[in-house]
Amino acid sequence: MSLIIDCHGHYTTAPKALEDWRNQQIAGIKDPSVMPKAADLQISDDDLRHSIETNQLKLMKERGSDITLFSPRASFMAHHIGDFHVSSTWAAICNELCYRVSTLFPDHFVPVAMLPQSPGVDPATCIPELEKCVKEYGAVGINLNPDPSGGHWTSPPLSDRHWYPIYEKMVEHDLPAMIHVSTSCNACFHTTGAHYLNADTTAFMQCLTSDLFKDFPTLKFLIPHGGGAVPYHWGRFRGLAQELKKPLLEEHLLNNIFFDTCVYHQPGIDLLNKVIPVKNVLFASEMIGAVRGIDPQTGHYYDDTKRYIQASTLLSHDDRHQIYEANVRRVFPRLDARLKQKGL
Amino acid sequence: MSLIIDCHGHYTTAPKALEDWRNQQIAGIKDPSVMPKAADLQISDDDLRHSIETNQLKLMKERGSDITLFSPRASFMAHHIGDFHVSSTWAAICNELCYRVSTLFPDHFVPVAMLPQSPGVDPATCIPELEKCVKEYGAVGINLNPDPSGGHWTSPPLSDRHWYPIYEKMVEHDLPAMIHVSTSCNACFHTTGAHYLNADTTAFMQCLTSDLFKDFPTLKFLIPHGGGAVPYHWGRFRGLAQELKKPLLEEHLLNNIFFDTCVYHQPGIDLLNKVIPVKNVLFASEMIGAVRGIDPQTGHYYDDTKRYIQASTLLSHDDRHQIYEANVRRVFPRLDARLKQKGL
Repeated sequence: MSLIIDCHGHYTTAPKALEDWRNQQIAGIKDPSVMPKAADLQISDDDLRHSIETNQLKLMKERGSDITLFSPRASFMAHHIGDFHVSSTWAAICNELCYRVSTLFPDHFVPVAMLPQSPGVDPATCIPELEKCVKEYGAVGINLNPDPSGGHWTSPPLSDRHWYPIYEKMVEHDLPAMIHVSTSCNACFHTTGAHYLNADTTAFMQCLTSDLFKDFPTLKFLIPHGGGAVPYHWGRFRGLAQELKKPLLEEHLLNNIFFDTCVYHQPGIDLLNKVIPVKNVLFASEMIGAVRGIDPQTGHYYDDTKRYIQASTLLSHDDRHQIYEANVRRVFPRLDARLKQKGL
Repeated sequence: MSLIIDCHGHYTTAPKALEDWRNQQIAGIKDPSVMPKAADLQISDDDLRHSIETNQLKLMKERGSDITLFSPRASFMAHHIGDFHVSSTWAAICNELCYRVSTLFPDHFVPVAMLPQSPGVDPATCIPELEKCVKEYGAVGINLNPDPSGGHWTSPPLSDRHWYPIYEKMVEHDLPAMIHVSTSCNACFHTTGAHYLNADTTAFMQCLTSDLFKDFPTLKFLIPHGGGAVPYHWGRFRGLAQELKKPLLEEHLLNNIFFDTCVYHQPGIDLLNKVIPVKNVLFASEMIGAVRGIDPQTGHYYDDTKRYIQASTLLSHDDRHQIYEANVRRVFPRLDARLKQKGL
């Protein structure tokens, strides 16, 4: 039996006090006299437990998954709000909550850190929070936002040296990054319906056109939401790489780039598994996230992605083991070490 | 036998004099003393004929397609360059060339117009060029750029009243619009690998979140490149529409939105045809466009999309007829009228 490890979970169900604190912080940007202190936020262990037991953990048990890699709510990162100090305080609070969840449910949740990014600010400023999350909280990965401006895309591409301080730390600590944007504040882009998927495609193409992984041969990026538009247009990307005189994508990118399974219908998951090598696919659901309803065509939750993996006629028993467990442990070596310590 | 109508072709092979003139025009933005006149561009019928006979028409004959809906090169529209006057002169030149091609090869090319859009300028300014193309050139559709800024996305969403003057003319003249961006001048977005696909997804989601087609029940949008990320994530979009309390996508969008077949590998085309109703799929290749090479996995051109349609095991003979001809004639009523006049 494989462990079923969901590599893409966010704390979307945090107690309302968190959102209230954030709103107060946002008010404090304009009026410093109302700016709250971090210590003003009081959430008890019981409140955390309740928010998880009635939501993620309940669904994990119903759907049959064991472990979730758990990071702060993606749409709430909102790095475009305020300055670095605002982002820094907010990231610290959110990361601490995910850490506390991981200590309350050590068999089921493992923390992944958000970074205190801020538009126009050197990403190196994120390193102290990153180090804290790894060393004190046991974070096994990070979420890296390629567009902290929230839909205006004012940062350099991921291949730019701008980002290298983060990559150096990732390599040093054996941390993969999920490339995940946050809320769009550009009226053109719906957050979960356009901005998220666009960012996935954009990040992949930034890697394709560059030689980033020559500089960082062990760097690992996880592209969420099934890779945006990439697998559907795999022929286009193979052809573009060819015109740019890059190596075959398997060699050029697939030692470093991985896709999750957050694709919410059977034909999409089938395409993903037809086109992308099994070794590059990691199980994930992003449950209680962008799409929370029940699909009238199946009677099941759209985001119950395990059903699609189970129903796939393309995957062998061993393929499923790779997707559910082995690939996740390989891409997240600190998770693997943690599980081995527990005899798993 | 069906006519095989390729609804997405650009004049990517125009004689070099066109590019030289454009470069001179761009130089003239900074230094008005070198600004060329439209009349300075001289391209003979023989040059036009040669550029088509050795390229598009040759491939159409080899691949077995009959008619191409032919518009100016998408990446050259570059609406972000200069002001409305610059765009206007440029659009007039490019549209006239496509018209001339259609008169030189009346059985094979039918013009579709680009618009002289310019960032921050009222789209109503495009109407004189649109009217000319319809009335004098016989254009059967338009290409509408949802982001004339070239990757900065500074215009309102397509659902905004900003765009209504164009929609009113489209409805009046029975013109569909292909929603097609141009070159990205944002370093984050590779033009054909990210910006094009992102724009397709973005446009679809702008329609999904709005009630645009209640205001314009007969408006028709063609989303190119197989709909960007949309069919691959069809479950996500169904689920998002459900959360937004919109009708089912079939009713909410699929009377007005259509997808072309510019997807450059068999699994992608198969997904498109599995997920999207046949009536919403229109044959297209965008040949000699973004991906011009030969796929080493098949030995054929990536953009020879007819091969994928032919090889599909999902499509019946009648389905193919819909995709190759009937849907294109239904979505482009002026094309249908033109073909009927010829007894086709």
